[in-house]
Amino acid sequence: MLAEIITIGDEILIGQIIDSNSAFIGTQLNKAGVSVYQITSIQDDKQHILNALEEASRRVDIVIVTGGLGPTKDDITKETFCHFFKDKLVENKKVLQQVKYLFEKVYSRPISEVNKQQALVPSKAIVLKNEFGTAPGMWMNYQNKVFVSLPGVPYEMKALIKNQVIPRLIDKYELPSIQHTTLLTQGRGESAIAEHISDFETKLPNFVKLAYLPSTGRVRLRLSGKHNQESILSETMRNLSNTLKQLVSDIFVGYEEEGSFEQQIGKLLIEKQATLSVAESCTGGAISQRITKNAGVSAFYKGGVVSYATDVKENTLQVSKELISQHSVVSEEVASAMAMGVKKSLQSDYAIATTGNAGPAKGESEEEVGTICIAIATPSSVFTKKFYFGKNRERVINKAVNMSFELLKEEILKN
Amino acid sequence: MLAEIITIGDEILIGQIIDSNSAFIGTQLNKAGVSVYQITSIQDDKQHILNALEEASRRVDIVIVTGGLGPTKDDITKETFCHFFKDKLVENKKVLQQVKYLFEKVYSRPISEVNKQQALVPSKAIVLKNEFGTAPGMWMNYQNKVFVSLPGVPYEMKALIKNQVIPRLIDKYELPSIQHTTLLTQGRGESAIAEHISDFETKLPNFVKLAYLPSTGRVRLRLSGKHNQESILSETMRNLSNTLKQLVSDIFVGYEEEGSFEQQIGKLLIEKQATLSVAESCTGGAISQRITKNAGVSAFYKGGVVSYATDVKENTLQVSKELISQHSVVSEEVASAMAMGVKKSLQSDYAIATTGNAGPAKGESEEEVGTICIAIATPSSVFTKKFYFGKNRERVINKAVNMSFELLKEEILKN
Repeated sequence: MLAEIITIGDEILIGQIIDSNSAFIGTQLNKAGVSVYQITSIQDDKQHILNALEEASRRVDIVIVTGGLGPTKDDITKETFCHFFKDKLVENKKVLQQVKYLFEKVYSRPISEVNKQQALVPSKAIVLKNEFGTAPGMWMNYQNKVFVSLPGVPYEMKALIKNQVIPRLIDKYELPSIQHTTLLTQGRGESAIAEHISDFETKLPNFVKLAYLPSTGRVRLRLSGKHNQESILSETMRNLSNTLKQLVSDIFVGYEEEGSFEQQIGKLLIEKQATLSVAESCTGGAISQRITKNAGVSAFYKGGVVSYATDVKENTLQVSKELISQHSVVSEEVASAMAMGVKKSLQSDYAIATTGNAGPAKGESEEEVGTICIAIATPSSVFTKKFYFGKNRERVINKAVNMSFELLKEEILKN
Repeated sequence: MLAEIITIGDEILIGQIIDSNSAFIGTQLNKAGVSVYQITSIQDDKQHILNALEEASRRVDIVIVTGGLGPTKDDITKETFCHFFKDKLVENKKVLQQVKYLFEKVYSRPISEVNKQQALVPSKAIVLKNEFGTAPGMWMNYQNKVFVSLPGVPYEMKALIKNQVIPRLIDKYELPSIQHTTLLTQGRGESAIAEHISDFETKLPNFVKLAYLPSTGRVRLRLSGKHNQESILSETMRNLSNTLKQLVSDIFVGYEEEGSFEQQIGKLLIEKQATLSVAESCTGGAISQRITKNAGVSAFYKGGVVSYATDVKENTLQVSKELISQHSVVSEEVASAMAMGVKKSLQSDYAIATTGNAGPAKGESEEEVGTICIAIATPSSVFTKKFYFGKNRERVINKAVNMSFELLKEEILKN
């Protein structure tokens, strides 16, 4: 079964927002055994929507449309559906009830005529209840294909996909099993890895593909398999990923599917019943934000200090004035003192500290833009290292965050 | 002039990465006066690439392809181009030089045969030098259309778009002026705004469009104009945005084009020569991260404390044990004490504090998941407010961050 995702809305085309909805839908469809063949982002325009539906119906079996629904947009999109499916709009009582309920009980606002029109849906559509908003989802069977239309608001769309679209697809089709395993590597280039594992790649069975995904200092190796028998696929994927892991054992740092680096570190710390704190200068809260993005981190995470100003390093982290003037704020010595300071003050077992210059201008230190010092304090010692991450602020911060987690993981595994 | 962006690579289709490249390209093309008509993400497969090129060439004048280049992917993409353009691959001396230079001087790694093949390009292509990587950009004029192929690594692609593609497009075509103005509003729903400004919307000139963009608690109103004469467009857009601003004056909070909320706050603080610090519990560093994402913030930002554990609130922020046991950690009283604590300890003029329960499970407080207390300390007082932001962790954190900046801005403007 092949699917196409169509997103409607100029905001994606002019670059005002990044299309994260499609990534979510892609992941969910894949898990269920549906391959996404294409993603198409189009303008909020009747003829363009018609063309896109027509073309998609020639390419795939399942078409998922997001966006173009909502009190000020409904007209075009829903009428275009009616045109395409040779149908007409009728008022749906259940949707009207839900719209009334939301306005009366949740929003506490008077309901308008425009809102009531959200209850109009194509007569042949199966209505998918939107738990969190007024625009309903719609499921249409047409010429042996499935067309689904969902609102573009991310949390409304996500609930509809998970609770309604995926279960209905699984119910309707006999879907194959799709599995991905992604090995994270660190420290070697794409072409060098490709030459080293070329034999492995040539011998892959025809239902498994290998992809190289390079990004800021890492290459990820993704094995993707698709097979009608889940047991065969699982065993093949397990064997192949073990073989590949051995082939790249010197640069292997983990499996992406076992969670992000932060989540893997969280698990290790909880196992050890150890705690963590963070002192951030150049990363400015990004390490802390990455950790606390996940729920349940209070089991190991104490908190952190963002010491952006030098006097905060001195007063809150107890880094001595002399040390700073002797080595400058961007130095392994200061990173080390910051890590010790936050570890002591927040009473944790481990600590990360970063100090550096993310650019674009030089700060209080004479160090080059892109120079970052990272320190990892463990229950018994401190490890520090200096890096140069280039001149792009966003990249420097990202690389520093990634590297901090990698160094911390190494130190935890040593202890 | 219409453009289509084609991104090649399964990683987008299976949802492994979010397509941020297209948003960047869309923004840059728009600024230059090129409208993006469609974005198409496709599989790394010869026939699919051929189909996409063929279809795009029927829709638009300019086709920008990203991805599918790199030492392990070159084969398919470059050969497919040759097939489509009826061309053949030839070795380009300048590209070979650049590849050799990067391996010898920058990567300090031996160069392989696979890498040398990156110097093969279609004979009719104009090579666009990739400053940061081995895969060159390519520009092809074919049947009165322009086709550009770029590597998918974001910082390589970005430099190529800015320094080579956009200047060449401006050189080749007489492009119209395209302008967007986006008004940020807070506190009213999409349909209520639409009814209120329906007269304004009906009377818009035919070269200006209005779009409603709802997202977590805000509706953004975007005016988009396109005209051959920049002076006419600028004046029209200025007048329209002023009229619209007056129509929604009670809910207007700023223009998106003047920078993010954080940047607007930064400007205000620098004007006042005032400083800021942050104490975060439930937001876990996200406020600090959003501030320090921008360069130059050390002019007003002192730093912050992430007091995830209760004992960090007590020890580092000097919130008294009694206050916490009397009111619970999630209370306006504790938020207020945290703001005062961090303001005093980091010696700033203003401070933000957040405490709450982002979920999914209840923490040490009995408060409902989604309850957030925010405090803003000013040079002379503290303001606090309690919110309920629903049950989705990511949304709760985002809403708390947005609301913190809004409340802070209000307090700064009062003082």
